[in-house]
Amino acid sequence: MTDLLQSALNPRSVAVIGASENIHKIGGRPIHYMQQHGYRGAIYPINPTRQEIQGHRSYAALADLPEVPELALIVVGGDKTIPAVEDCASRGVKSAVIIASGFGETGPQGKELEQHMLQAARRTGMRLYGPNTQGLANFGTGAIAGFSTMFIEVPPKDGPIGIVSQSGGMSAMTYGLLRGQGLGVRHVHATGNEVDVSVGEMALAVAHDPDVKLLLLYLESIAHPDILAQAAAVARERDLPIVAVKAGRTAGGQRAASSHTGSLANEDRVVDAFLRQHGIWRVRDPHEQARAAHAYLKGWRPEGRRLVVISNSGASCVMGADAADDEKLPLAELSAQTQSRLAQKLPGFATTHNPIDITAALLSNSGLFGDVLPVVADDPAADLFFINIPVAGAGYDVERFARDAAAFEAGTGKPVAVAAWQESVASAFRAHGIATFPNEGDAIGVLAQLARHTALMRRPRLRPHPPAGRAASVQLPEHGERFLNEADSLELLGGHGVPVAQMTLCRSAHEASAAFERISASGRQVVMKACSSDIPHKSEHGLVALGVASARDAAGLFERFWAKMDELSAARDGVIVAAMHKGRHEFMVGAHVDPVFGPVVVVGDGGKYTEALNDCAVLLPPFSAADVERELGKLRIAPLFGGLRGEAPLDIAALSHLAVAVADFVQAVPDRIASLDLNPVIVGSAGEGAVAVDALIEMRARG
Amino acid sequence: MTDLLQSALNPRSVAVIGASENIHKIGGRPIHYMQQHGYRGAIYPINPTRQEIQGHRSYAALADLPEVPELALIVVGGDKTIPAVEDCASRGVKSAVIIASGFGETGPQGKELEQHMLQAARRTGMRLYGPNTQGLANFGTGAIAGFSTMFIEVPPKDGPIGIVSQSGGMSAMTYGLLRGQGLGVRHVHATGNEVDVSVGEMALAVAHDPDVKLLLLYLESIAHPDILAQAAAVARERDLPIVAVKAGRTAGGQRAASSHTGSLANEDRVVDAFLRQHGIWRVRDPHEQARAAHAYLKGWRPEGRRLVVISNSGASCVMGADAADDEKLPLAELSAQTQSRLAQKLPGFATTHNPIDITAALLSNSGLFGDVLPVVADDPAADLFFINIPVAGAGYDVERFARDAAAFEAGTGKPVAVAAWQESVASAFRAHGIATFPNEGDAIGVLAQLARHTALMRRPRLRPHPPAGRAASVQLPEHGERFLNEADSLELLGGHGVPVAQMTLCRSAHEASAAFERISASGRQVVMKACSSDIPHKSEHGLVALGVASARDAAGLFERFWAKMDELSAARDGVIVAAMHKGRHEFMVGAHVDPVFGPVVVVGDGGKYTEALNDCAVLLPPFSAADVERELGKLRIAPLFGGLRGEAPLDIAALSHLAVAVADFVQAVPDRIASLDLNPVIVGSAGEGAVAVDALIEMRARG
Repeated sequence: MTDLLQSALNPRSVAVIGASENIHKIGGRPIHYMQQHGYRGAIYPINPTRQEIQGHRSYAALADLPEVPELALIVVGGDKTIPAVEDCASRGVKSAVIIASGFGETGPQGKELEQHMLQAARRTGMRLYGPNTQGLANFGTGAIAGFSTMFIEVPPKDGPIGIVSQSGGMSAMTYGLLRGQGLGVRHVHATGNEVDVSVGEMALAVAHDPDVKLLLLYLESIAHPDILAQAAAVARERDLPIVAVKAGRTAGGQRAASSHTGSLANEDRVVDAFLRQHGIWRVRDPHEQARAAHAYLKGWRPEGRRLVVISNSGASCVMGADAADDEKLPLAELSAQTQSRLAQKLPGFATTHNPIDITAALLSNSGLFGDVLPVVADDPAADLFFINIPVAGAGYDVERFARDAAAFEAGTGKPVAVAAWQESVASAFRAHGIATFPNEGDAIGVLAQLARHTALMRRPRLRPHPPAGRAASVQLPEHGERFLNEADSLELLGGHGVPVAQMTLCRSAHEASAAFERISASGRQVVMKACSSDIPHKSEHGLVALGVASARDAAGLFERFWAKMDELSAARDGVIVAAMHKGRHEFMVGAHVDPVFGPVVVVGDGGKYTEALNDCAVLLPPFSAADVERELGKLRIAPLFGGLRGEAPLDIAALSHLAVAVADFVQAVPDRIASLDLNPVIVGSAGEGAVAVDALIEMRARG
Repeated sequence: MTDLLQSALNPRSVAVIGASENIHKIGGRPIHYMQQHGYRGAIYPINPTRQEIQGHRSYAALADLPEVPELALIVVGGDKTIPAVEDCASRGVKSAVIIASGFGETGPQGKELEQHMLQAARRTGMRLYGPNTQGLANFGTGAIAGFSTMFIEVPPKDGPIGIVSQSGGMSAMTYGLLRGQGLGVRHVHATGNEVDVSVGEMALAVAHDPDVKLLLLYLESIAHPDILAQAAAVARERDLPIVAVKAGRTAGGQRAASSHTGSLANEDRVVDAFLRQHGIWRVRDPHEQARAAHAYLKGWRPEGRRLVVISNSGASCVMGADAADDEKLPLAELSAQTQSRLAQKLPGFATTHNPIDITAALLSNSGLFGDVLPVVADDPAADLFFINIPVAGAGYDVERFARDAAAFEAGTGKPVAVAAWQESVASAFRAHGIATFPNEGDAIGVLAQLARHTALMRRPRLRPHPPAGRAASVQLPEHGERFLNEADSLELLGGHGVPVAQMTLCRSAHEASAAFERISASGRQVVMKACSSDIPHKSEHGLVALGVASARDAAGLFERFWAKMDELSAARDGVIVAAMHKGRHEFMVGAHVDPVFGPVVVVGDGGKYTEALNDCAVLLPPFSAADVERELGKLRIAPLFGGLRGEAPLDIAALSHLAVAVADFVQAVPDRIASLDLNPVIVGSAGEGAVAVDALIEMRARG
């Protein structure tokens, strides 16, 4: 158990600065909650106007307490907040929760006040939670340093779920949704403006709680990815699933987030890549978090994605098959033996292939589920089961269906989800502990999530640092230009294992002619390009020529490019003469250094319109070639990779290795490189490789 | 009111063949329902073993009745079904509902039995509903020729919604979901195997009921699009929205549908185009149908899509902005005046721009909603309103919020949706008649649906037939080959207003040289292609040459192509010599004649991989160039159309007109053409036009 967990989540003593007798006030409610939920440590109300509060002796000031409290809950607001923080810090309080709002979320002045708090806390090693938070609640220890009204609306019950949220509202809502399903929740922590402790650090603490079996996060920005990555590593080690909402996915959402918690904007596709990298499943909102919770708590870790759909409604079978396809879950192909066994159990007009329509015959034969399910369970083709009961009620023995389904679930150990919109039907299944959903979209969505999240959690992970000594070996130029020219960019990358096109940098028409002769003697076509660190986008200035026809033309082009560079007042680094690469498809590989997440590699469809068409995979190093191939498989152009109309497959393996080499390069010098762009990277048929024929490295301004 | 409606939905008399005293049996329940729900006509139970059934005199046979019933409900199954149908038909019954299953859905033998029924009915003009159906229910007249148990589970209430469904299960489920929301439902009709009356025809009847304000359809296949289109036209005329589920969207779903109701598979993207064409909004499942019903019944027809988000939770503002972006609803830009008025009402740390975060201050000031809403209502920038209350309960004056929201809604006349997951909060809003949802995704999804469906319903529609006389003018060759060669295809299309590339069909090397000279004299590059109706995909045989260098090369190529065609034993129709068109982007325009929906036109990204990349719009004629442009705007390549990196826009208008010309052509001769494929269609910058440079027309085999 970390120190953080100890002093904030299981403190020996809690002071409430600004305590109130009124249990409906923010200063009264936490004391009430702690008493209600079995907190065993000392509670010290601080309020100079009272002798006693809720049965505890009240003190005028922190100085008057018989001991230094481990945790202080600072309820006082306005001008009193910062002095209270300073007082806590100087007296050796270990953790302080600051409820008041009106700080960083209001603008620069508020951010400055937060820095005051933080400096005061740092001087003595005190940790801060908030400000602008609903506080912390641990129903395992009864330490409730928070005031959420939701604990009145829906009574708490300790259980295997942890919630850590930037937003108090969302922690309360997620808690309420889970408790509404009857699930127990231990941790409900809100971090607010995160002047010190972030969701990531809190998640790390909660991930160490061995009783927690599901960890739910709500984030509006990720400022400290490293600690969140640590939390994810601890969780993976324990097979603890983390399901996160990262709000502010869109431009509008990010604007709203900055006025809510003063959050920095994160680039959303990088957030996606980061969460994926660390095995964290991302959902849209707390409803999606809550809907899957019961299924996660079953401990199911499905090995595959093949779904069996069973219903008493033919239409539901149709829509179930559609929904499975939407979620890319293949329908399991039942064996001939399974089908013939089913045929013996079902009426003649029922369907024995998957989806299995047991038909309205269920009304007259309540044993049908019990007959059918064990047969299906025996078929090894099935990974996931979905039972849809859109019509039941009077005349149906729903209790028996539920009992049969529960026995089936216990027998298979595989995930079973039921959809039933009628409360009378759903409640019978829920009473047997079955994961029950109002509709097939939710049920199948959760099954798909379990299967995909399991695969994501089990994915092999590379060590988080590039090979030692690699950084030292990267020699970057010191000339201080913003861009490296194409020749230097290609040479630098080529020297670090990135396959690049061979070229000659010519400084005279004569050199250009000679280079032309050499290349065309080998039977290849020739391309010429002006090379200047001042002209990153040379084709826009007509400084690229394809299919140069003769040595004489090469000389002429040299002179023309040379004059044009002069006209543009650009550095004349030379003119590149190179063999043309044809290949089969043009890709792009880019990299940049994100201010929060560090190196980011982008691989996708290349060419002139790469940005507008935005068909690319985003990966955070370290990653393997297999990781790149998997992500490339999600591109819209992926159907081309296997080869169409009799063509050979593309050499996607070579492209993936090239991307890994780029990642190694950028990881080695993240503080020197702002971005790099290889476009096009020309990929041939399998075995023919991938080669970058143009490159642009943007250096980072020296600090 | 149509005849259909009269005899099936408001019959003067109903016979129940196979009537039962037991109201839990299929033969007993309809009589019970009719008595319960005020049916005023005569009820004639037919059951030879009884004197009286549920208080009505029972008859041994149809022949014994005092009159010919208008409607017969045939409950008897197995071998008795067809004689009962024949008996009804021969005695002049107008409509018969056949409950029994075991017919078309079981295979060819069952389909044959259905044809027997149909022939018997056709002889006397009797209409059939089913077989394999739960029957019909009209709570306006009390004529319940159906047995759904759902009418016991959830008591019926007459109201403004009509449900027509192929599946009895889905009609029952949709009914139950709507009644669960307290909404009244008049029509609940299931058409089953549709041997005669289809969902479309039934929808046409229900669309004529002036009290129906929302029509919900469930379809597994569309066999008679014309009558569904008629229903949609009647509905549009009356501003009656139709929301449809068409299940079997995917290959797996279509397989399941064929064993459920014996449905034919429809091509799903054509179904999409058809429903869009007729102003029918398509959703995934009955849950999506039901969730939007309340909002439709408000009669809202929003003019725009600009959304205002208001919440007492900052996080909900963030997620609301994200959800708006997901649904492509722009956040309304509130005026400076609105913002300054809001600033006067809200606490200092609240947000006055959209999304409006009124903050937790709502807890201490219950008037905040009432203060804020009228200010926002005055701003003309807003089209749609979303209020999210993720946290409330004890201490909040929820009743007042609901009252304020209801007053606001009444005042604006614009759509207002509320999200509240806490039942205590949601029920307060529902009690005030406010459209209330469990989460922001549903609420914003429904607002977006209303805005988009309104726009779809109001879209101008072309007359459903091509100009008279056009068909006669299309001269098609009679040579009996399956494919027209490229030259004939281009010439035929060019003659009917489709811009096609000029070319010369050469029959000798000499002609080819001469054609080369003529084209290159005009300064253009030359392309040559073999032309044979036996070789539809000539590039796969190396029978295309680009950038022919000289007249001599042209002659050589002619000889080579000529020999190759001979080697392939293909008809040697000639060799095409043509000017190369460069343009800016290669599109494709295709057309085929769907066996159910007739002519279908496809426009999209062209080139070699057009099928694999599948980035195309599907349209059903008749359509305008504006219709094509709107659909093209949804393509993944649409960002290129406006011109990027300083380029001029593409001539999408010319491409759209070309697609309209193709549609006119195919509409003129749908019975002769199987498909046509123009790929590539080369599109230049705006004003430069679009031209088909290759074409392949596939003829339909003569019947």
